[in-house]
Amino acid sequence: MIDLRSDTCSQPTDAMRQAMATAPVGDDVYSDDPTVKRLEREVAEFLGKEDAVYMVTGTMTNQVAIRAYTEPGDAVLFDQNAHVYILEGGAPAAFSGVLPRLLPGVRGVFTPGDIEAALGVPHRFFPSTIAAPVKLLCVENTHNIGGGKVWPMEQLKAVCETARRRGLALHLDGARLWHASVATGIPESTYAALFDSVSICFSKAMGAPVGSILAGPRDFISRARRFKQQIGGGFRQAGIIAAGALYALHNNRERLAEDHYHAKLLAEGIAVLPGISLDVQSVETNIVRFSVTSLPATDFADRLYERGLHVLPSGSDGIRAIPYLNITEADVRKAVSIIESVASEHADKAGTYGTQGVVQSTKNSAGY
Amino acid sequence: MIDLRSDTCSQPTDAMRQAMATAPVGDDVYSDDPTVKRLEREVAEFLGKEDAVYMVTGTMTNQVAIRAYTEPGDAVLFDQNAHVYILEGGAPAAFSGVLPRLLPGVRGVFTPGDIEAALGVPHRFFPSTIAAPVKLLCVENTHNIGGGKVWPMEQLKAVCETARRRGLALHLDGARLWHASVATGIPESTYAALFDSVSICFSKAMGAPVGSILAGPRDFISRARRFKQQIGGGFRQAGIIAAGALYALHNNRERLAEDHYHAKLLAEGIAVLPGISLDVQSVETNIVRFSVTSLPATDFADRLYERGLHVLPSGSDGIRAIPYLNITEADVRKAVSIIESVASEHADKAGTYGTQGVVQSTKNSAGY
Amino acid sequence: MIDLRSDTCSQPTDAMRQAMATAPVGDDVYSDDPTVKRLEREVAEFLGKEDAVYMVTGTMTNQVAIRAYTEPGDAVLFDQNAHVYILEGGAPAAFSGVLPRLLPGVRGVFTPGDIEAALGVPHRFFPSTIAAPVKLLCVENTHNIGGGKVWPMEQLKAVCETARRRGLALHLDGARLWHASVATGIPESTYAALFDSVSICFSKAMGAPVGSILAGPRDFISRARRFKQQIGGGFRQAGIIAAGALYALHNNRERLAEDHYHAKLLAEGIAVLPGISLDVQSVETNIVRFSVTSLPATDFADRLYERGLHVLPSGSDGIRAIPYLNITEADVRKAVSIIESVASEHADKAGTYGTQGVVQSTKNSAGY
Amino acid sequence: MIDLRSDTCSQPTDAMRQAMATAPVGDDVYSDDPTVKRLEREVAEFLGKEDAVYMVTGTMTNQVAIRAYTEPGDAVLFDQNAHVYILEGGAPAAFSGVLPRLLPGVRGVFTPGDIEAALGVPHRFFPSTIAAPVKLLCVENTHNIGGGKVWPMEQLKAVCETARRRGLALHLDGARLWHASVATGIPESTYAALFDSVSICFSKAMGAPVGSILAGPRDFISRARRFKQQIGGGFRQAGIIAAGALYALHNNRERLAEDHYHAKLLAEGIAVLPGISLDVQSVETNIVRFSVTSLPATDFADRLYERGLHVLPSGSDGIRAIPYLNITEADVRKAVSIIESVASEHADKAGTYGTQGVVQSTKNSAGY
Repeated sequence: MIDLRSDTCSQPTDAMRQAMATAPVGDDVYSDDPTVKRLEREVAEFLGKEDAVYMVTGTMTNQVAIRAYTEPGDAVLFDQNAHVYILEGGAPAAFSGVLPRLLPGVRGVFTPGDIEAALGVPHRFFPSTIAAPVKLLCVENTHNIGGGKVWPMEQLKAVCETARRRGLALHLDGARLWHASVATGIPESTYAALFDSVSICFSKAMGAPVGSILAGPRDFISRARRFKQQIGGGFRQAGIIAAGALYALHNNRERLAEDHYHAKLLAEGIAVLPGISLDVQSVETNIVRFSVTSLPATDFADRLYERGLHVLPSGSDGIRAIPYLNITEADVRKAVSIIESVASEHADKAGTYGTQGVVQSTKNSAGY
Repeated sequence: MIDLRSDTCSQPTDAMRQAMATAPVGDDVYSDDPTVKRLEREVAEFLGKEDAVYMVTGTMTNQVAIRAYTEPGDAVLFDQNAHVYILEGGAPAAFSGVLPRLLPGVRGVFTPGDIEAALGVPHRFFPSTIAAPVKLLCVENTHNIGGGKVWPMEQLKAVCETARRRGLALHLDGARLWHASVATGIPESTYAALFDSVSICFSKAMGAPVGSILAGPRDFISRARRFKQQIGGGFRQAGIIAAGALYALHNNRERLAEDHYHAKLLAEGIAVLPGISLDVQSVETNIVRFSVTSLPATDFADRLYERGLHVLPSGSDGIRAIPYLNITEADVRKAVSIIESVASEHADKAGTYGTQGVVQSTKNSAGY
Repeated sequence: MIDLRSDTCSQPTDAMRQAMATAPVGDDVYSDDPTVKRLEREVAEFLGKEDAVYMVTGTMTNQVAIRAYTEPGDAVLFDQNAHVYILEGGAPAAFSGVLPRLLPGVRGVFTPGDIEAALGVPHRFFPSTIAAPVKLLCVENTHNIGGGKVWPMEQLKAVCETARRRGLALHLDGARLWHASVATGIPESTYAALFDSVSICFSKAMGAPVGSILAGPRDFISRARRFKQQIGGGFRQAGIIAAGALYALHNNRERLAEDHYHAKLLAEGIAVLPGISLDVQSVETNIVRFSVTSLPATDFADRLYERGLHVLPSGSDGIRAIPYLNITEADVRKAVSIIESVASEHADKAGTYGTQGVVQSTKNSAGY
Repeated sequence: MIDLRSDTCSQPTDAMRQAMATAPVGDDVYSDDPTVKRLEREVAEFLGKEDAVYMVTGTMTNQVAIRAYTEPGDAVLFDQNAHVYILEGGAPAAFSGVLPRLLPGVRGVFTPGDIEAALGVPHRFFPSTIAAPVKLLCVENTHNIGGGKVWPMEQLKAVCETARRRGLALHLDGARLWHASVATGIPESTYAALFDSVSICFSKAMGAPVGSILAGPRDFISRARRFKQQIGGGFRQAGIIAAGALYALHNNRERLAEDHYHAKLLAEGIAVLPGISLDVQSVETNIVRFSVTSLPATDFADRLYERGLHVLPSGSDGIRAIPYLNITEADVRKAVSIIESVASEHADKAGTYGTQGVVQSTKNSAGY
């Protein structure tokens, strides 16, 4: 089975396992784990932030960040398809009690005007008690549901500047920030400098089994440590797994270019197929999202699975596939041929199902 | 000052005050207030529901309803401009911990397809733990930010049927349901029959000083009473104010047609003015929303106020005006002439500001 | 039926009803209700605080105060039998997400040492992330479950001083603060001066049908207004009921001494009865709590009810009775005779049930 | 430094590290990690429950259990010194919105009567909306702040039976359930059979670096998986660490008897010292809690630390020390001699500080 469901399916390599097996550890709740402390220090420096805290998942780093900036009844600006909004179990509301206010991003990318429109124009006739006050803007780069879209730097700067001028805090969901940097050559720290805080993830394409880092100002990280502990994130000899993240930081970042190449290869291989709608230019990093027009995406995914290719259906007509470090070029070529075989069989129905490519489709409750 | 900010500014009449002053009362926390009980019984019957509970505001009846159907981490479908979402202090998230999933309504009216798109297509490849499960659909009729829009009955039925088929509970925010019924001749109970629960409000155009009713199945109302008490809504000799609501139910509903006439009059009077964008056909009930294109809405509202007309700016180019029982036809004609005087002075700039009518503009964080 | 369940059962007098019927009103959400504003101003002055906000119940003023001082995961110090902890629907946890830390008060009165013990001794070996940080102390005076106990001023000062030194905010639940002042001659404002904020209630012995005030620093009250609105407490022409509270403030406070006299009369009349355990000295204000030792309190209350006296059972062996403005001396004498008749019939079982007076019994989940 | 702060400070052995390094793994969010699935299956069987879910910490398994049984505004019965109440960051309130109702346990052990008293006696005169409904009882065995106290089986049965009769769900915080079983010979599954759900922990004396299991009925565990994901507990290749837990289950349980022996040795060695208050009989498992009467516990702990012994001060006069798998008998003997040296130096002040042994002292906000 070629598994392209997600880069979260990556397996630790032997060398990474070895690094983990030999890592010095201590009780991290007592701030005594040397490997965790080293990881936090190195990543803070890597991202150009004062401090950092290691947690078990990217959902936890993101949601703890949201919690640390807000109190219940505050509002937060998200792209309408943000991972933190759609794919984190309702945590913004359940854990932080904050109201999502949504921006009409295209593939996750919105404009300063979208922010201004969402914030509205305060006026003395309008009671300030009625609408939830907006406190925070979250940006996702690259954008998962947006198909691995990289934010253009100028637009990102403009958006951040507008948010700052309107008094918002800024958090970057950088679960796949590595990919933006590898694709553009702009260092992660340059993206991070536009935000108060950044989360990055080691258990996706970076190939570590577990773990994410939240970096930001010292006081903020201190506050984040409290909420990490509160929701049961206070693990003990976490150095065992932090060692995998450290190994990934030192060894797996450069090779992401290979995944981008594989994604492009996959996209080019299938864009021409009947009943597949895919703009090859939209594949900027390691995520390939395409839509199928010959049968429902769920059926299409079932057919692929029967022939040895595992992908995720997303919405009614979308499919997502992501190559990662355990996926070879041969795997990709085989994936193309499996997709081709299914597409061919249903070629006569091409165009009869679905209305548009999923990458453009932004109303998506089940994207992943 | 002619005050058209909101029908919530209505004043109780002498007759209503008299009814309140003589109402028998008891301690409602002990279920001992005869007037509250009578109001609850009469309204339950009026709406065709098993039971009803009286609360102090429409925000409370709506938010308690949302709370009673859900638990934190559930998702709820709202129109993107729903009052319960935009104008109730973030309560869906703060009080119920639920994640709003938004439907792209036009003036608050959406389609069965919008619901299907929001719910997505479940598939065994996608972990059910990741997205917040959707439990409830809320509909607002008439729709406040939508400019008093009445839901077409056929579309409403189709939407409710789709929601039921997908297993959702259904709540109707009927703060201005009276207006829909007066405009269409369809009884409130006919609208209510499509939903599990309905909230209606007495302190808006109905002219009572305080109070709202939530009606629904007996068990649900029982559960609602618990949450009402929990958030401090358990008032004591509430019959004093419930008597105002009873009076309104018996005396003020029919006269709402007059407000609709006044709204139409106002709309027709100003639609022709330079720098005013308003579709007279869009004024279906008592709310008049128009946009100004000669200067920012906040400035426009300030100019009107200086000349004796109080309205609410809404977003960058919107203005809202609502006639109600204390507003006479003469007041409306005077309001038109005040608007005319301001519009005329800025006529040369007409079309230079704003891009579209506010009624069409759905991204609106500060609408009221 | 003589109804001694609670002073919340008091009925508005004709004069109060008249004051309400003629009150000038406006939309309080727009800060336009003159009677509400007058009440807020007068009570702020009466309590010696910068600002005040009128809400619909004492539960709301208390819980909004707790909310305004805290964020979820903070801890709050309560007496183990505090009304805000036991009798407000779990709101400290449900609405504010705060963890109650309990003080072992005797009839609601605890010591500086109790506070110190609850706060513990911070030490660098102990991770600050593990225990919920204590932010607030709430004090209840007089204390409901404590049987109307008045806090001794010196002890209250000492407790408040300790709390301040340890950095806590201080809130006084003064639902029956009037009674403490009437009993001791110490003005309400003197008690209030020890606290950041104070809630007082008009719908109990003060005889108004509805309403409570929260008073405190201007910024705090501003914040409280936000949470009042969020939980649906933003009523409109609230002046109608605020007028009742104003009337009570001007007319009903002095007469509370009469209720105290009636409570003493009741206590003296029944303390001598077989199977009744009651320390007459413990009746300091308008609440009479006694325990029954001849049969379960619920049965005892049922027997009384059958003969025309309505009281509340509280826990397994406690009974609560509260005279108020609609209760005459004759009513009290009749109540004594009804209790006497029931007690006599069960005199042979005196001492066989219950173990102690309810006033001393502090584990009480169902006291009211 | 001899580190007796906590058994959470245990280090994984080489053999355990090897087991982890070679474990097969998959993406646990997709239910694809074979080692996690094996651990869950084995532990469910070991505890006699239908299903089990692996999480990153004991705080998470406990708090997710509480969440899964309740909704905000419910009440939960805890011992007054329960770890879930005192030492989990306020999570019962912050994450679940539940109100803790406290039982007056002695070293964590309470009675059926305590439960009855807390639940009170419902009566039709008392509105059911006012008090938070109690839904769940949590029991901790062994009890941390209670000094490793083992629940006597007969009392545990009686308590559980009372709770069931009153309709409560039952959760066992079995972070150190292993110790109860090793001490009494009663299997973990026998304790577990009394409860709906059980949490156990692998990162304490069992010596695994990370992880805890929640076991219970299939539907409940399914629900727990949702909340685990929601708070960011959905780790990916978690088999890496689950392998450590599996190793512990197979290899480290029996050796806990050695820790119990070491604890007894430590207790006997220091009980006789001047200024130390310790009942040797109270040391039933691996936790040694004693109080110091010659100087504040924090100072005493500082003096020990300077001489090479790391323990935790707890409250004003308490000290906690816990031997575990990396602590040898020689370490324990050295610890005794260090404590002796400090105790001797302050022998003249023995009895001047503190009032009672910490094991008896139940008001303890900073115990660990």
